[in-house]
Amino acid sequence: MAAQNGNSENNGEMVVTPWEVKGKVDYERLIREFGTQPLTPELLGKLETYTDKLHLQIERRIFFSHRDLDTVLNLYEQGKKFVLYTGRGPSGPVHIGHMVPWIFTRHLQEKFQTRLYFQITDDEKFIIDNNSTLAETRKWGYENALDLIALGFKPENTFIIYDVQDMDLLYDIALKVAKRITFSTARSTFGFQDSTNIGWVFWPAIQAVPCFIHKKLTGENVPALIPAAIDQDPYWRVTRDMAQKLGYYKPAQIHCRFLPGLGAGGKMSASMPETSIFTMDPPDVVKKKIWNAFTGGRGTAAEQRKLGADPSVCSIFQYYYYLFEQDSKALAERERRCRAGEMLCGECKRDIVEKLNKFLEEHRERREKAKDTIEEFHIKRK
Amino acid sequence: MAAQNGNSENNGEMVVTPWEVKGKVDYERLIREFGTQPLTPELLGKLETYTDKLHLQIERRIFFSHRDLDTVLNLYEQGKKFVLYTGRGPSGPVHIGHMVPWIFTRHLQEKFQTRLYFQITDDEKFIIDNNSTLAETRKWGYENALDLIALGFKPENTFIIYDVQDMDLLYDIALKVAKRITFSTARSTFGFQDSTNIGWVFWPAIQAVPCFIHKKLTGENVPALIPAAIDQDPYWRVTRDMAQKLGYYKPAQIHCRFLPGLGAGGKMSASMPETSIFTMDPPDVVKKKIWNAFTGGRGTAAEQRKLGADPSVCSIFQYYYYLFEQDSKALAERERRCRAGEMLCGECKRDIVEKLNKFLEEHRERREKAKDTIEEFHIKRK
Repeated sequence: MAAQNGNSENNGEMVVTPWEVKGKVDYERLIREFGTQPLTPELLGKLETYTDKLHLQIERRIFFSHRDLDTVLNLYEQGKKFVLYTGRGPSGPVHIGHMVPWIFTRHLQEKFQTRLYFQITDDEKFIIDNNSTLAETRKWGYENALDLIALGFKPENTFIIYDVQDMDLLYDIALKVAKRITFSTARSTFGFQDSTNIGWVFWPAIQAVPCFIHKKLTGENVPALIPAAIDQDPYWRVTRDMAQKLGYYKPAQIHCRFLPGLGAGGKMSASMPETSIFTMDPPDVVKKKIWNAFTGGRGTAAEQRKLGADPSVCSIFQYYYYLFEQDSKALAERERRCRAGEMLCGECKRDIVEKLNKFLEEHRERREKAKDTIEEFHIKRK
Repeated sequence: MAAQNGNSENNGEMVVTPWEVKGKVDYERLIREFGTQPLTPELLGKLETYTDKLHLQIERRIFFSHRDLDTVLNLYEQGKKFVLYTGRGPSGPVHIGHMVPWIFTRHLQEKFQTRLYFQITDDEKFIIDNNSTLAETRKWGYENALDLIALGFKPENTFIIYDVQDMDLLYDIALKVAKRITFSTARSTFGFQDSTNIGWVFWPAIQAVPCFIHKKLTGENVPALIPAAIDQDPYWRVTRDMAQKLGYYKPAQIHCRFLPGLGAGGKMSASMPETSIFTMDPPDVVKKKIWNAFTGGRGTAAEQRKLGADPSVCSIFQYYYYLFEQDSKALAERERRCRAGEMLCGECKRDIVEKLNKFLEEHRERREKAKDTIEEFHIKRK
């Protein structure tokens, strides 16, 4: 909520709201402040029994916190299924960081054989951004859906919701939710101010709807599990407060970290496209972005060979960690070689450029094919 | 906004908001306070050229105030058509008072050959009333639409909008409107408070939509003229402020008075069904309500014969004035006989019971037939 909460001019201080993430994110502190639960070994053990082995993103604690995942798994054990729900605010093109939780969502869908509701919030992006138009957010909604589908989701159990087009499906539930949220609650949860427009004030009710829509469509009352970045948590807190009064399960969540950007300190923002790799970036653009990325390297090659570098602050290393080195032994070896000065940044960058461009090339092929099937995913077509 | 603005416990003081009308309504004061325009002889002259003769409700100043009616007629003179827009909050059955402006709307539609958009605000009635359900407001929406259609509207040029079902048609325009209304403006216009729910806060954007929807459906940009009771004026003030920025004409309005209720002082409310005549009231119920109605009569027949009665405070006389004595000479004669003590309340009540029951019987026949055609009026069917 950049323009609204007055925090935009902070000095590197952590800000995590549904509309803004700034500063160095302290995830332990978020668990405390948001009141979510860490993933315990016991819970991971239970998860593992259903997923053969833990997904890389769990193993590496990219997903690190939850609400009621234990409840959902206990219900599952008793034969009660659940649905997945996540989404995308279509303000522009999709980058690698956006896809990280979607890849994990795809894994959960496959292992638990569940339905996914994917909400494209073209209304939200229009209402919160003074300069956006509905034509733009609709266009990005379509483009972003192609990226989702390219990750391997199937139309049989993936239901894409485009808010503006599909509002007649959502509105009755949104009204029931909205009736239970006072302006006062919305203000304290989301930081709304007198200058906030009334569409934005209402909007949290719409983000709640996919938690509950499965019952409307199928008659089955099952919980929703939401894999998403932790900045979205405030929405679900409000939704959880009223779910049972409306006759639904509380939505459960599993929260992930943000893939850091390529700038110094992991900085990344929509206004700095050079700090993210977008799915439509051609190979030379990817190469250029990676070569300009902030690393943990030393001033000179000689110095680095002697003293080693620091992968803990390196934006490139995070790309390996999040997605591009799935072999944990190889990742550890890369880290060791980096710290020991056995490998310079150039080598590491060349490797990631190659991996990225290979990944993106294949992704774009699948993305192109998705144009033929995208309509089959639309919730209104079902 | 009974529960919200703290005015519910007033002492007969006038309160006129979109959600509450209380106390003795001073229409001259409303024109001043709301900043609307009185109907001038010049404007009425222009209206008359298009309507053969002035409608009874204009002649008797039941419609008494306007915004931009002159602009709409000037544009019409230049060949630019307009559309009509009015509506109904389906919180319960329709009574005679609700139908008064609809009858006038039907007249305008016929004389100007224009399209009518009729909004049934089942969402609003749900969101503002703690005890209502969507099933109820939907049911009343259907029932109320039957009463509208029974007044002679034709499906060719009458488009009924049911908000909850049709929100996918309305939502894009509602978002554009909402983006231009801050919470601060909404609060000062509608008296919203911290305890107001966020659905209610958003709702004014939805009431604005039918002012603009004609352009979306047909490509024609024409103004909307809204015949409605004056309590709805605050909505249009906000809508007018932004209309041109969104590329539309400002909606024009023509405002009517409220048919007074049958209680003392013209009191009428949904919680006192005995003070209104509903379209589904059987003859004996109508008779009972009329016999219990507040009149300007004296304590005894002898006294009344001697001193005469006072039609200016009589709720029954208002029924003749608004709808049931269209012959102004006959009305004047009735008033004279009343004042002179030549006619007692019993005679006058017997007459109105007969007229009311005849009107309602015919209305209910047309209402029954409307069940066959109601779907043809639905905007989504077009």
